[in-house]
Formats: sequence, structure tokens, C-alpha cells
Amino acid sequence: MKEKLNKLKELTAEIMDIYNAAQLLEWDQQVNMPPGGAEQRGNQTATLQRILHTKTISPEYSKLLEELVASADELDPDSDDARLIEACKRFYDQRAKVPPEFTAEWYKTISLAYSTWEKAREASDFKMFQPDLEKVVEMRRQFAEFFAPYDHVYDPLLDYFEPGMKTAEVKAIFDELRPQQVELLKAIADQPQVDDSFLHIEYDEQKQWDFGVEVITKYGYDWERGRQDKSAHPFTTGFSVNDVRITTRVDPLFLPSALFGTLHECGHGLYGMGINPAYERTPLADGASLAVHESQSRTYENLVGRSMPFWQHFYPRLQEFFPAQLGNIDLPTFYKGINKVEPSLIRVEADEATYNLHIMLRLEIEIALMEGALEVKDLPEVWNTRMQEYLGVTPPNDRLGVLQDVHWSSGYIGYFSTYALGNLISAQLWETMIADIPDLTDQFARGEFSALTEWMKSKIHVYGAKYKPQELVQKVTGSQIDPAPYMKYLQTKYGEIYSL
Amino acid sequence: MKEKLNKLKELTAEIMDIYNAAQLLEWDQQVNMPPGGAEQRGNQTATLQRILHTKTISPEYSKLLEELVASADELDPDSDDARLIEACKRFYDQRAKVPPEFTAEWYKTISLAYSTWEKAREASDFKMFQPDLEKVVEMRRQFAEFFAPYDHVYDPLLDYFEPGMKTAEVKAIFDELRPQQVELLKAIADQPQVDDSFLHIEYDEQKQWDFGVEVITKYGYDWERGRQDKSAHPFTTGFSVNDVRITTRVDPLFLPSALFGTLHECGHGLYGMGINPAYERTPLADGASLAVHESQSRTYENLVGRSMPFWQHFYPRLQEFFPAQLGNIDLPTFYKGINKVEPSLIRVEADEATYNLHIMLRLEIEIALMEGALEVKDLPEVWNTRMQEYLGVTPPNDRLGVLQDVHWSSGYIGYFSTYALGNLISAQLWETMIADIPDLTDQFARGEFSALTEWMKSKIHVYGAKYKPQELVQKVTGSQIDPAPYMKYLQTKYGEIYSL
Repeated sequence: MKEKLNKLKELTAEIMDIYNAAQLLEWDQQVNMPPGGAEQRGNQTATLQRILHTKTISPEYSKLLEELVASADELDPDSDDARLIEACKRFYDQRAKVPPEFTAEWYKTISLAYSTWEKAREASDFKMFQPDLEKVVEMRRQFAEFFAPYDHVYDPLLDYFEPGMKTAEVKAIFDELRPQQVELLKAIADQPQVDDSFLHIEYDEQKQWDFGVEVITKYGYDWERGRQDKSAHPFTTGFSVNDVRITTRVDPLFLPSALFGTLHECGHGLYGMGINPAYERTPLADGASLAVHESQSRTYENLVGRSMPFWQHFYPRLQEFFPAQLGNIDLPTFYKGINKVEPSLIRVEADEATYNLHIMLRLEIEIALMEGALEVKDLPEVWNTRMQEYLGVTPPNDRLGVLQDVHWSSGYIGYFSTYALGNLISAQLWETMIADIPDLTDQFARGEFSALTEWMKSKIHVYGAKYKPQELVQKVTGSQIDPAPYMKYLQTKYGEIYSL
Repeated sequence: MKEKLNKLKELTAEIMDIYNAAQLLEWDQQVNMPPGGAEQRGNQTATLQRILHTKTISPEYSKLLEELVASADELDPDSDDARLIEACKRFYDQRAKVPPEFTAEWYKTISLAYSTWEKAREASDFKMFQPDLEKVVEMRRQFAEFFAPYDHVYDPLLDYFEPGMKTAEVKAIFDELRPQQVELLKAIADQPQVDDSFLHIEYDEQKQWDFGVEVITKYGYDWERGRQDKSAHPFTTGFSVNDVRITTRVDPLFLPSALFGTLHECGHGLYGMGINPAYERTPLADGASLAVHESQSRTYENLVGRSMPFWQHFYPRLQEFFPAQLGNIDLPTFYKGINKVEPSLIRVEADEATYNLHIMLRLEIEIALMEGALEVKDLPEVWNTRMQEYLGVTPPNDRLGVLQDVHWSSGYIGYFSTYALGNLISAQLWETMIADIPDLTDQFARGEFSALTEWMKSKIHVYGAKYKPQELVQKVTGSQIDPAPYMKYLQTKYGEIYSL
């Protein structure tokens, strides 16, 4: 078995090298590539992906995995080796179970769907996008069949992003959460609104960048093992646990955009940098799931980065960067401004109190689409009705409504819920962490973040993708994903800000 | 045959995709990669190179090539298809003729030699480097044997960089050139030295960068198909004819460093951007040779970039960028300053009049080492003697002498002569171009460079690696590589500057 395991590691290392090289091509495309490079980059990426695919589903690799899976009960099920076999099997199944002709057809479909969506959004005309989305939904249903049997047709899509997670679990969590979120929002809406006009004025771009760098350096982002660049859509990617890169974007007329974007991506980056180096060149050198990843970005962005202790330390420094803009704004006013709650049409602009409602609406729609309970043509109506019900606003057009997100046009069905689950996990981790380190927020007020990052590293980061998300949350917090801590967090925070 | 050719193109496209992906990994390593990324980048590069190698020497590719080579006389020998078969065969031979164990040993050897060289240079102690260099030389002799039969043991090394070029040819060229270069240098040394102290003062780095960008934009560098970054050693690389990137470095205390470095790399970049797009994903999407490549960089850097007409246009603009530094320096003084001739110890700092002498010394040493006529241990003595003989200076230590260049420690024997050959070709092309476009330099004085770049594109760039260097020079200029035009160029230029 030892010998077979070594062979598995050797073959997997090669596969992951190709995977990571392809990641670099993608990073470069987003960050550096001149427009002219697009055509050949497409060829280069396609070639690497084809080689990756061929090597993963090769008879040698397939047979080796099968034998190792069969004899895996000889291993401690919690050992790295047992989990490695499991992770490799998952990586293999995702490729081997889907026929290559289907995959080819799929890439063509989403490439067209994306370009139609861009035009439809521009024209604010859902009807234009409808046929493409119908094809995407139909092909996602076929995709699910490759992973039959399943409890629910949406399970295989969810599992792709949240290993082991079931639709029924997520529904149960969201069903518990929704009424509480709606109620909190109504309570806030009855209160006078806070002022955040001082955030919507001109802020020097370089200074915004520099302040963000100063903060994430204190968070522990390691510049010897990472870098930050600009890109149209901020993201984090890594090619090794020692080369994890983040991007941000700077809006010269809205301070929070670059700042909280940088803190958010830093959370993802710290996760990547904290993974056990022994997992290099294996599928374990990854996050446990998108939701667990999001719990990290949300912690550093919101639970820490929008907290009063954080700003007790950093606000004087921010005022030094921007004396003209913030010299006359006191800390309580600033704090309220960056935590303003306002039901809005657009998910990516939503605050902490409304964000999850945007997600729930999407999840419900996705599940209904996959079940066949909802037809694509009826989407705008359902969208608008729910927006009014949950958030009290109705989109004036499709562009500001059902066409706002890129995800469906790119084939990502099953992705949205990870954002909300990440919020929930972040609050659960927070409660456990505060119990472990009672003076943690006092440390923030002194500009100290090493205990925070060390705790996250030792409890979450270091395990990489060894544990499934529910398993990891259970291991660290003693319970599975649970909406109560997040609701408590929101109620306390906004209770103070809005005097509820 | 048509079918086989299509199959060849299909397989070659995949090989070149991997090659170009590996080039991107290398570019990223030089330009962006944080230090922590080095270890896994090494693995990723090694994996791509191994896959590239395996695919190139595969039985399928090998057999296909063999059949196509055998029936190539059915094709017009000047057709793209005939030349493609030839280029693929060359690419194949470079990999197939060298046993994999030798290649593995070789990479280990040069990796060690490089690290020893770094230490030896630091300590200025050639003896420390001697055993590694002996091994490199010995392995280059073995390497040559894989390409036997040959006329001269140095031929296979030279051929790697200059397809089809023979040692005897290069020796003959240099034997003709050397006494004339030495004579010119002696005549200059008898004249009063020009002043260039105004170049050795502080110049704002961002302004240096911006001025360089302004110039190469006028040269025709296409920012939609390229970009410029900073790196420790300036270089040019491409992943497509529509994605050709250059780098530069900026010395805040020496104006020419970034400026002429940028113009030099732009010359390489324009070559890459001008290649026939039909050659994408084939070995024809490359320069004809390093010397032909260098003819382009040298043209844009020196023949144009250090010429009076160029500065008639650009000097007022440069003075606008740097009024404090250059406001009181008139054009003739500036022009003389950037063309100052001074025999120096270091090749990379050498001016146009002395550069080739540095190269000749290295070529003679390389040939003698490969022949066995010179032993590695005697290198420093030979080096210092020749430096005195050719340039009239003697290095005070090994660091400023025989240990100055990285090339040998990286296994590059056969490379140096391409620098000097590039200079010679640049002057030959210049004579032909001036005959074609008599008012060319008047255009420069008006800031017009499109005729220059269009000429180079149509005569050189567009052919990529279709022709061998001697063949291409013959085709464009009517003669093979010839030192006379370059000597004439130097004599005229420096005759004026130094009143010879």
C-alpha cells in the first residue's frame, strides 16, 4: 500500500503542477495580459486543461485510485493519507464521470451564454438571455445525472462547491434564517438613516491602495509569499501555499470599495498561505469549501474590519491619510457610515444585514429551476416579487434585477449559497475564538492581529481541504453550520448602531 | 501528404502551447513571483518541460516527421510548409538526439555551476568556480557529440543559437573585424575625451519610465499586444505574436540605463510582434536567430536611438522631462555624451565602438576551450592578456574580469558571438534600408518611425524563423554577414564625434 500511495502522490503531483500552471495563465489573463493575447491564451489554457484531464482519467491513475480506495480501511480514516485518497478520488470523479463530448458542449454553451448575457444586461432585456439560460439549466440537470444517485437534483451542483453538503441542509438553515433577517431589516427601516455621504467623495487612489496594504500587512499577509495587483473583479488565487496572490480595485469616489475589497481578499489569501506545506502538489492544498473560504474573507472584512475596536486603532491613521475628507468626521460617525444598512437592488453592494437575503432569493430560484418547479421564462417575475417580499424594493428593470449577476451565464449554479454560508460560519468561528481568546478585540484596538491570524491558521487554514466543511465546522466549533450566532452578531451590532 | 501535414500542425500546436505556457511561467518568475513561489514554480516548470519533451519525442510525432522529411522534396523548398517541416525537425532533433539522463545531469550541473559562480564572483575567486566550469565544458563537448558529424566541435553549440552557422564562418568574420576595431579604438584614445557627467546625476525614475514609453510608442510598440514591466535583467518574451512583453530596469543615477535598455528591448519586441500570424503555434513563430534578433534591438537602440536625427526630434522633449538636469546641456553635447567611447572592463557597460572586442575575446576563449587548446585553469590569464591587447585595460581581479558574465555558469557556450553578429547585421540592414528609403533619417528628425518599422517588418519580422540567418541576410541585403558596413558606420560616426 505504501508503494501505491507513493505512486499516487507522484502522479498527483504532476497533475497538480499542470493545474497550478493553468491557474497562473488565468491569473495573468485577469491581471496582466494585453488584449491581443486572448486568442492564443485560450489555446494554451485549453491544451493544459486537456492534458490535465487526460492524465487524471488515465487508466494508470484510475486503477491506482480504485485499488487505494478499496484498501483505504487499512488506514486511520483521519490520517492525511486517507484524506488524500478521498480528495484525489473526488478530483478524479469530477472529471471521469462527465463524458468529454458533454464537457466540450458545455464550454461552448457557457461561452455563448456569457456573451449573450453581456448584451442582454446592456439592453436590460431578459428575454434575450432566456434561451441561453434555458440551455444552461437543462445541461446542469444532465450534469447532475452523471452523479446519480442523489437525494436532490441540486445536490451534485452544491457538492461541487461544498463537499458533502446537501440541498436539504442548506434549505433548513436558510428557512430558519430568513424570517429573522427580514424582521431585523424591518426594524432597522423604522429608524432614522445614518449618514455616509463622506464616503462618497474623492479619495486619492494611491493613498487608498497604500492604506489597504498597511492594514493587511498588520493582518499578517506575507509579501514574501504573495502580492497584490489590480483587476476588474477582485479575486484571490494561489499556485503554491507560498505564492498566494490577491487583487483589488480602487474607486476614486467611494472609499469602502478598495478598502473592504482588500481586507476581504486578504482573508482568502491568509487561508491559502496557512495551509500545511506538506499538502503541496495535492488536492488537499485548497480550502475546505467555498463557504469556509468565505468565512475567512468575511471575518477579516466584516467581523474584524467593520468593528469598532479595529477602527479605534486604524481610524486616526486613516485620518492622517485623508485629513481633508475625514478630519472633521469623528469615529462614531465613521463607524456608523461604514456600517450603514440600506436595502438595495444589487447584491455586490449589499451590507451585512441585507446580503444574505439576496443569496436566499437566488438559492430558492436555483433549486426551483433545477427541480423544474420554475420555468426560466418566469424568472423576472419571481425575482421581483421576492425582492419586494424580502428587501422591500422592486427592480425597475432586468438589468438591476435578474440580469445583475454573471454567475448563471458562466454556468455557476450552486455557487451563491456559499456566500451566505460563509457569513454564518464566520460568526460561529468568532464565538469560539472569543471564548479561546477573551481579550481578542482589545488586541485589535491596539493594532494587534497575530493572535487572530494564528488562531485561524491553527484551527482552519492548516487543514487545507482535509476535512469536509460541516466536519471542519463541527470540529472547531462543536456544532454544524448554524445561523444563530450570525443572527446574534447582526442583532447586537445593528441594535447598537440603530438603537433598536 | 496534406493529411500528414495537417496532423503535424495539430500535434505541433499542442507542443507550442505547452512551450508558450512554460514561457509565461518563466516571465512571471522574473517579473512578478514573490520569493516564496520559487520551489513550486520549479516543479511546475519541470513538469511542463517534461510533458513538452515527451510529446515532442513521441513515436507518433517522430514517425510523422520522418515521413514528411522523406517526402519534403514534393514541396516548393521555399514554401511555408517545407520550412515548417524543417523547423519542426530542428525542434525535434534538439530534444531527441540528447539522452534524457544526460539532460537531467546537465540541468543539475548548471544549477550547481550557477550557484558556485555567484559565490565565486562575490569572492572574486576564479579557482572556486574552476571545477564547475570544467564540468560544464566537458558536458558541452559530450553534447556536441550527439550532433556528430560536424566540421568543428563548436559548430553544434553555435548552431543552437544561429541555425546553420559554422564556426569557420564566424571566425573569418571576426578575424577581418578585429584589427579594424582595435585600430579605431586606438585613434579615439588619442583624442580628448568627451564629457558625459550630466548623465550621471539623479533622474526621476517615473519620468525616465514615461519618456521611454513615449519613444517606443512612436517606434510602433503596440500596447494592445504587449506590456512593459520592471525586472532585474531586461528581457523580451512572447507567448503569441499578439502578446510580446518587454522589461526594463531604471537606474536613478544614470539616464542611459533605462532609456537605451527600453529602446533595445523594444527592437526585440517589434520583431516578435511583426511575425506572420499564420505561424502561431509553430516553431516558425520565432526569430530567425539570436543574431538577427539582436540586429533589431541594436537598430532601435543604437543606429536609430543614438543617432543625431533621432535626438533632433526627441531632445527638446527630454529636456522638458528633465529641465534641471538638461536645460543647460545643448544637443551636440548631449549627443556626444551618449556616444562616449571608453574602453572598460565590463561588457554590458561597453559602448558601440568597444562592444565587439569584448565578444571576440569570449568567442576565442570558447572555441579554444571546446577544442581543448585551452584549459579552464588558464582562463584568467588568457582573459587578462587579451583584454590588454584588444582594449588596453587589465582587470584588477576576477570579478571584473573572467567572472563577470553569467553565461558560462548557465551553460550558454556559443551564445556570445550572436551579440556581435547582430551589430554587423544591423549595419547591413541599415545600408539597404537607406537605399530603399533615402529620406529615412529626415523622417526620424520629424519624429516619424513608421517607415522604419514597416521596412523591418516586411523584410525581417514577418518571416519569423522561416529562413536561416545567413539566408535571410543574403535575401534582404544581397550579401552574407559582412563586417564592412558596421566598420564603416563606426568610422563615420566616431570620426565626426572625435574629429578623427
